Amino acid sequence: MRDVAIIGIGQTPIGELWTQSLRELAVEALRRALDDAGLERLPEALYIANMLAPRLSDQTHLGALIADYAGWTGIEAATVEAACASGGMALQTGIRAIASGAVDLVAVCGVEKMTDAAPAETTSALVTAADADYEGLHGATFVALNALLMRRYMHEYGIPHEAFAPFPINAHRNAAHNPNAMFRFEITPEGYRRAAVIADPINLLDSSPICDGAAAVLLCPLEMAADLSRQTPVRVLASAAATDALMVGDRPHPLALRAGRLSAEKAYARAGLSPQDIDLFELHDAFSIMAALSLEAAGFAAPGRGVELAAGGDITREGRLPISTMGGLKARGHPVGATGIYEVVDVVTQLRGQAGPNQVRDAEIGMAQNIGGTGATIVTHILQRVS
Amino acid sequence: MRDVAIIGIGQTPIGELWTQSLRELAVEALRRALDDAGLERLPEALYIANMLAPRLSDQTHLGALIADYAGWTGIEAATVEAACASGGMALQTGIRAIASGAVDLVAVCGVEKMTDAAPAETTSALVTAADADYEGLHGATFVALNALLMRRYMHEYGIPHEAFAPFPINAHRNAAHNPNAMFRFEITPEGYRRAAVIADPINLLDSSPICDGAAAVLLCPLEMAADLSRQTPVRVLASAAATDALMVGDRPHPLALRAGRLSAEKAYARAGLSPQDIDLFELHDAFSIMAALSLEAAGFAAPGRGVELAAGGDITREGRLPISTMGGLKARGHPVGATGIYEVVDVVTQLRGQAGPNQVRDAEIGMAQNIGGTGATIVTHILQRVS
Repeated sequence: MRDVAIIGIGQTPIGELWTQSLRELAVEALRRALDDAGLERLPEALYIANMLAPRLSDQTHLGALIADYAGWTGIEAATVEAACASGGMALQTGIRAIASGAVDLVAVCGVEKMTDAAPAETTSALVTAADADYEGLHGATFVALNALLMRRYMHEYGIPHEAFAPFPINAHRNAAHNPNAMFRFEITPEGYRRAAVIADPINLLDSSPICDGAAAVLLCPLEMAADLSRQTPVRVLASAAATDALMVGDRPHPLALRAGRLSAEKAYARAGLSPQDIDLFELHDAFSIMAALSLEAAGFAAPGRGVELAAGGDITREGRLPISTMGGLKARGHPVGATGIYEVVDVVTQLRGQAGPNQVRDAEIGMAQNIGGTGATIVTHILQRVS
Repeated sequence: MRDVAIIGIGQTPIGELWTQSLRELAVEALRRALDDAGLERLPEALYIANMLAPRLSDQTHLGALIADYAGWTGIEAATVEAACASGGMALQTGIRAIASGAVDLVAVCGVEKMTDAAPAETTSALVTAADADYEGLHGATFVALNALLMRRYMHEYGIPHEAFAPFPINAHRNAAHNPNAMFRFEITPEGYRRAAVIADPINLLDSSPICDGAAAVLLCPLEMAADLSRQTPVRVLASAAATDALMVGDRPHPLALRAGRLSAEKAYARAGLSPQDIDLFELHDAFSIMAALSLEAAGFAAPGRGVELAAGGDITREGRLPISTMGGLKARGHPVGATGIYEVVDVVTQLRGQAGPNQVRDAEIGMAQNIGGTGATIVTHILQRVS
């Protein structure tokens, strides 16, 4: 098993990008990743992470399409999908393609175009990540399913809604300095309290936006990294995934993200690390409740104590465990199939020391956790700066 | 890079399976693969090949869903999609997961449920494999795009329509003895001549059916095969993929399947073989024209001569290069995302000597070629019986 390095990163700004098509966004992110590495060589394989194009863009077969538009006709290509964890699973596919020895240069690109359809269509397309026969059929939406989880958490642990405020406040504070973020402004506790309720108890500032964007990484064997890229290589210490029941009602304890715990435990074991070795954590804060659950599943807080980590300031960029350091899903944005790649791009940016005003000091080891559905697929990557 | 073996195969019969859901079909194929191997152990990863569920079943996130319904909650899982080449690309993903050393037992399952929707919806969903902006938008359907290719082939090489008859006649002859085939009856040259035209010059017997089905394979390192399975192991000699322009009009020569040639050449090189070493070839006869083009791209016939191979009887199970030995896409059936796995299941059945009346004598090395779109993704696998 060859060691794998991330040698190039690229991203488009996230937003309502009505003047760019799906293929244009993907190619822009890929070009930026090649420019970042200073690389002219053609990748041998391209893995696309995407969830919604079959419904919202009438387009499957994105691998060949985007390879073609990137000018790479002929290379291997496919789409990898695991709902909002598509990015993480596509990255794992790319890592293993390199590790196996089959190919030496791989591009992984997450892309999503959510804003071309009517909001109701986008909402219907998103709920395909839940169980169509037992959740979607009954009219559940993703925000509704997350609202059930948040209400249960508040009830079970006796936690008031305002205890979640530090999550979006931290995310927006970091997004304010990220030129690629969708919401580049800060929010206040007062703003959070007054935000419109979307699905009780979830309010507008608990929710990540519907948006467009693409992010890409380039992978190669670690021993080739110095030859292929002008950037400091980032080593993949672990890539681990796990699943849980697709339907939240089928899980023994709906607040325990089993797949998060399993994938984090596998990742720590493979990397030979434990939670206290992690310098920053890009978690999947699609909703504030998911930030708390992810912190708990990954071993950073006991069940019901994730919000305390936030309250104490530990999650800020000056804190013990910075999260959402470039704005997270909440404020950087959440173009669903692309999110797992954005998370990893943000970790790499930090490990290279290129995060500008958001730089986490002495960041050497970073972790990303990408969640699909209400936690049915969770992928954990641990990355290390190679100095 | 570890050598990889296929140690278990399973399939559902193909047909209009209105009493079985998508998840039930997938789990049935997976159970049969485990039974075939005589294996109780849990796979560590599951890759699902599927194209249409996001549109026709309102369901993405099939990896976690099917892992859950198989009773394997917790394992890694994702969907791999490359239109009708989804099966081939999912298999390659599984092979590399094993080859990399990350996991030791992988299940790959292709599943498609095409008949629950209205035919017009299924037709619209299928054309998402073409370029949505430049082909689908203008009302092209898949049969129309293939009709353009067939007409061009007939014009360019001066070949009459009836020259294609041996392809479906051979496929139906073989399907007649395959209990899992959709069309278990023979057809005649007279029947082919009289068949209703669907999109001139393609007639009903040039076309594979809209249908449901699931097929699965189990993979492990070759050195573990004898311990894990009671079946003769089949070794993966090569897994190679390539892409072409998604839009047929963007290709320098629309009748040259560049991706087929590239992936076959890569596969031969990796296996250290040439076309004359192949004992049987499961090709992608979604339409008769694709059978001819695939034979040419894979090096078995010169451009425009694929039909001669059929006319001479070389493609029958007694011939020099048996194709569609269990009925092919035409008569076994073509549940699109599952097809690449069915092809490989058929090759394995032959290499094990389990093909009954359809057995190709002394079959040691078999090849499968899985085509997405009108040839934008083509995946070639070469497999060898380990005796």
